[in-house]
Amino acid sequence: MLYFLELNPHRHLTSGTGHPKFSNFLIFQSFKPMNLDQIFNAAQEAFLSYKNLSGNKKADFLEKIAEILEENRSAIVLIAVKESNLPEGRINGELGRTTGQIKLFANQLREGSWVEATIDPADPTRSPMPRADIRRMLIPIGPVAVFGASNFPLAFSTAGGDTISALAAGCPVIYKGHPAHPGTSKFVAECISQAVKKSGLPEGVFTHVEGGVKMGQDLVKHPLAKAVAFTGSYAAGKSLFNIASDRDEPIPVYAEMGSVNPIFTFPQRLGNELVPMAQSYVGSLTLGAGQFCTNPGLIFVPKELAGRFENAVSEALQGAAGSPMLHEGIAESYYKALTELQLRSELKWVKVPDAKHLINVSPALAEIKASDWIADDLFQQEVFGSFALMVVYENESELIEVAKKLHGQLTITLWADNSELKANGELINLLEEKCGRLLFAGVPTGVEVGYAMQHGGPFPSTTSANSTSVGAHAIKRFARPIAFQDMPSDLLPDALKDGNPLKITRQVNGKFES
Amino acid sequence: MLYFLELNPHRHLTSGTGHPKFSNFLIFQSFKPMNLDQIFNAAQEAFLSYKNLSGNKKADFLEKIAEILEENRSAIVLIAVKESNLPEGRINGELGRTTGQIKLFANQLREGSWVEATIDPADPTRSPMPRADIRRMLIPIGPVAVFGASNFPLAFSTAGGDTISALAAGCPVIYKGHPAHPGTSKFVAECISQAVKKSGLPEGVFTHVEGGVKMGQDLVKHPLAKAVAFTGSYAAGKSLFNIASDRDEPIPVYAEMGSVNPIFTFPQRLGNELVPMAQSYVGSLTLGAGQFCTNPGLIFVPKELAGRFENAVSEALQGAAGSPMLHEGIAESYYKALTELQLRSELKWVKVPDAKHLINVSPALAEIKASDWIADDLFQQEVFGSFALMVVYENESELIEVAKKLHGQLTITLWADNSELKANGELINLLEEKCGRLLFAGVPTGVEVGYAMQHGGPFPSTTSANSTSVGAHAIKRFARPIAFQDMPSDLLPDALKDGNPLKITRQVNGKFES
Repeated sequence: MLYFLELNPHRHLTSGTGHPKFSNFLIFQSFKPMNLDQIFNAAQEAFLSYKNLSGNKKADFLEKIAEILEENRSAIVLIAVKESNLPEGRINGELGRTTGQIKLFANQLREGSWVEATIDPADPTRSPMPRADIRRMLIPIGPVAVFGASNFPLAFSTAGGDTISALAAGCPVIYKGHPAHPGTSKFVAECISQAVKKSGLPEGVFTHVEGGVKMGQDLVKHPLAKAVAFTGSYAAGKSLFNIASDRDEPIPVYAEMGSVNPIFTFPQRLGNELVPMAQSYVGSLTLGAGQFCTNPGLIFVPKELAGRFENAVSEALQGAAGSPMLHEGIAESYYKALTELQLRSELKWVKVPDAKHLINVSPALAEIKASDWIADDLFQQEVFGSFALMVVYENESELIEVAKKLHGQLTITLWADNSELKANGELINLLEEKCGRLLFAGVPTGVEVGYAMQHGGPFPSTTSANSTSVGAHAIKRFARPIAFQDMPSDLLPDALKDGNPLKITRQVNGKFES
Repeated sequence: MLYFLELNPHRHLTSGTGHPKFSNFLIFQSFKPMNLDQIFNAAQEAFLSYKNLSGNKKADFLEKIAEILEENRSAIVLIAVKESNLPEGRINGELGRTTGQIKLFANQLREGSWVEATIDPADPTRSPMPRADIRRMLIPIGPVAVFGASNFPLAFSTAGGDTISALAAGCPVIYKGHPAHPGTSKFVAECISQAVKKSGLPEGVFTHVEGGVKMGQDLVKHPLAKAVAFTGSYAAGKSLFNIASDRDEPIPVYAEMGSVNPIFTFPQRLGNELVPMAQSYVGSLTLGAGQFCTNPGLIFVPKELAGRFENAVSEALQGAAGSPMLHEGIAESYYKALTELQLRSELKWVKVPDAKHLINVSPALAEIKASDWIADDLFQQEVFGSFALMVVYENESELIEVAKKLHGQLTITLWADNSELKANGELINLLEEKCGRLLFAGVPTGVEVGYAMQHGGPFPSTTSANSTSVGAHAIKRFARPIAFQDMPSDLLPDALKDGNPLKITRQVNGKFES
């Protein structure tokens, strides 16, 4: 369902026909004014049947979404490029990523083992008391409120990983369209609604709403909401977390709030590959105008190579033209953050941002001593965009202090040769505690969508380090365990039935079987 | 370590020799005055080495705890009986349960698959971009603050499921002794400390502290605490949750806060087995003076059988003598709650509590119409003790309304024959949403410790419905995922190495292998 809330009673009259050029692809037919109670009641009602669909049926539905998105590729790319300032190639790729992750979750549903079926069969002969038959599995939690990201108008937005993993788990989604790409969001929402309809599912399985901060807060406050997924800034994510925790019934908030994704370089490795590493670093730093959660905004460089590395980075930055940001507000925040940092005497500026062009921003680079960096947490703040803070360290024991002070990160990258890794075991041991993904090669941007991906780290990079927002494990955010004790066999869900009709991997009496 | 905080600088001088009769068993040697910063720093320091122990080494340590507890069985039973008013048979059984669950976690560590190893191997030939090697597993989160329960001085206390599952995950524990059984707690803590010493582990792996409400709050507030486990009342659990959510870095609180564990009876099944069911109900209701989180304080009975069932329950209650509660405070709360309920005109009292005897309480039974019960949430409040609220329903559609209103529960039990189960699919579908364990036979008390147990349900029965505090899955509360990208093979943890040296079940390229 695409609903315009009664808060904006007239908006649907105009917006519904706002993109007539797309009417060849989809007929916008489901705009209705409703209030949040009606929306959540419809979602809850839909939940009570949708949750019981088989994995295969849910997979069919998800694949139907992917199919309709592909059918409308040219229209979606057109509108998303226009709204996001992102190049067509990127948006085309992002749509592929979006349908790719839909297929990953569909495959996971067809395989079926994600429900963690665990069976302790009855033991009537046990003394002093017979043991009951107990069977446990994951079930969906209920309606989920999802907030998309501005920097991924497709893959982390309306039909993005949060929406799809919640639907895969069996939870209806109430999705709040991001104001940075309202047309894209509505268009994709309509694709999902068509898939709902074609799959014969109740409309309440998916609802698209629009609104501002107040609407977002109301979504999180609604008694029927059972979880929140969010990708965006620390300020917004933490504020939703606070609201959710203050509810009469607190609910989990899975907020991915970005980080500075430090790279630690070591002298032997860096000395051997200095120029390609500088180029690789700049490539990751400036990708998408630096608008990635995994953008490496912080790099630690040994003193003896700092000058050479700085020159190589500066040179690589010459080639990196200013790129347009998603919208003026983001560009403004970028310049504002840099202007504040320029007041700090600890920083030596290698490349100041070019004259302020709204939207089109240029990369910037500053240098700081590790001892100064350690002394003030402010230097850990994320500047969203292509700003690199190069921290020059004296020796490796200084890095131990850095690791202890470091805030939680989505990723940490080590550029070291094998002997350097071996010599820095204590540091690696500390860094493990500060991130969700630890890289030993390459750059942190370009998050693989697979089974093993972990996109989520200790606070403040997320509000829930024990979850991921990318990859197959993301589905578990929207599920909870239930145990059935002595349930008659014909009532048992297929995942728990004797004979394992779904052929899934299960733990029986403590042993894994498939 | 057993630490008396500097808040009570002199207490350790007396308490350390407070139980000289046990000196044959253990020499209390590790009482030191320390402040919370020192305690958490020691725990964090210990964490950085303890987390890297192999599963087998951690299992050895846990089994050493069980061994020392068994060696000291007679002393532990003596002091726990004295402090808890629980009969010796029960305490002996509870110690067996305690060492049994220690062995469950030790077995789980030796088996090793709990880390959910997930491997997406590199694919250098993939186009347009080669795929990196990504390997994911669960790692421990850091120091955990544990609050034990008064009603299980052993199995849910110092060496109880929360402490042991945190240690099993690889997390140091700071345990706050429960004031209802201070001697038992200290004695068991000393056993754990001896196991720490004999296993050659750093002292900070386990610390026992004593104190009041302020101390509990300070534990939760400490920046080095990474999670909280709690078993007890709603008021205390929710207040710790609020403190943890308000921290600069919010941390998860796994609070199990009890519930009323409704039993739904249906006419055919109940009619056939009315007397044994009444006896079974009373047995569960009065077990341990009703002091169980899974005590069935609420039972729904069809109108046509209400009179007969009530008589049978009353008769069974005649045989149930008053039992001593854990301490006077609990008995006082029981009488106070009943006195308040006696003011409510909706209730018809079948058995009022006998004249108020502190400590020794008698069971009570009141009856209410389902329509009255639905009308006021107050009737859902838990009365800790052997109080049964019998709700008389007119028809099964009334139960749908009941299910919609029902708060989250640890357990829900259905006493129905197969045809009644089939006729009440909608009700069962709703009840699944309201509990962590759904029983189709037997009574909810007597929580099995196994692989499939789920002890934890939707709020307000816990603050985290996606976790369990009993059974093997409890370990996952204290772990979080990390992904290693392109990690050199010799640095990989054994769980993620090629060739699967630990012989655990792993997911490789989406397929489960072992």
